[in-house]
Amino acid sequence: MMKEFGFRGISEVIATTISKSGEPNAAPIGIISDGNLSARVYTNTQTYANIKATKKMVANIVDDPMLFVLSALMKLSLDEFRMDDGNPVLKAAKAWIVFECSIVDDPKCATVILLPLRKKILKRSIQPVNRGFNAVIEATIYATRYLVMKDPKYLGWIEHCEDIVIKCGGEREKEAILKLKEFLGGK
Amino acid sequence: MMKEFGFRGISEVIATTISKSGEPNAAPIGIISDGNLSARVYTNTQTYANIKATKKMVANIVDDPMLFVLSALMKLSLDEFRMDDGNPVLKAAKAWIVFECSIVDDPKCATVILLPLRKKILKRSIQPVNRGFNAVIEATIYATRYLVMKDPKYLGWIEHCEDIVIKCGGEREKEAILKLKEFLGGK
Repeated sequence: MMKEFGFRGISEVIATTISKSGEPNAAPIGIISDGNLSARVYTNTQTYANIKATKKMVANIVDDPMLFVLSALMKLSLDEFRMDDGNPVLKAAKAWIVFECSIVDDPKCATVILLPLRKKILKRSIQPVNRGFNAVIEATIYATRYLVMKDPKYLGWIEHCEDIVIKCGGEREKEAILKLKEFLGGK
Repeated sequence: MMKEFGFRGISEVIATTISKSGEPNAAPIGIISDGNLSARVYTNTQTYANIKATKKMVANIVDDPMLFVLSALMKLSLDEFRMDDGNPVLKAAKAWIVFECSIVDDPKCATVILLPLRKKILKRSIQPVNRGFNAVIEATIYATRYLVMKDPKYLGWIEHCEDIVIKCGGEREKEAILKLKEFLGGK
């Protein structure tokens, strides 16, 4: 069922979940593919609280770099979500998969085993490699690490990513890295 | 005609060309999209000689990281090519576009204006972001720069990419970075 999704190693998707009171949440997550699918989820996050409450998580495959920046560092607007048969999905997703979640608990970072329940493919595209897009993803990961660890090496890596975005990115990549830099500048 | 290909900023593809005597060649190239499509091509390369001779270039959109490593640093086997109506294309391409080329000459690095003539879409896929794949592309670019400039900073960047491939790549990404490292080790 999952082969056509191209999961291998760790794939970066945006996880959407919903709280018991019905509030949707989005955050980037790495889907680990090693025969089975799983994810490592920090237990102090809204994603973890929602998975624990609902036992569900949706993996959204997206190609808008801004969605990675916003969902990692800020909050996605409610406008970005749509409910599909009780599950929150991103309107901009090219495809999504609803997973049933089993939690292998750990005080800081839980392993969540992912069992696919339902999927939808909305857009198959031809994407040539864009180093600018890739650099936004890297910069987003380094930004989240910087916020936790405050190690200035991450700021250097973000600068390097920014150079690549300026050289190789499209408009959306440039908007996304600007948003990321603005956000870090306010920290 | 080109919109569905998602070209923006600079997109990394594999350019296939053919010499006057009929020998195909493959090399990664960046397609610059700024209203028109173009590429910067070093004049000491086989790609440039072939474009100058035939006024044609095919842009292959591929998702096999090994093809980037092999075509950038070594030579693709003849088995990887197929002729399509007189143009060399990669068998593994998800899509390709044949371009008519106009050269704006320059002693070291020419600008080649690309006019799309014909395209074929063979596979539309759902690719979640894989940082391992992206890191192979980065490492390949740094490897080609290292070979020219011998600046050891590129080796450090390649190490960083390798760490990402080991953590996030699938089998094919791991094979590709190993091939790259073996090649650099012999230099």
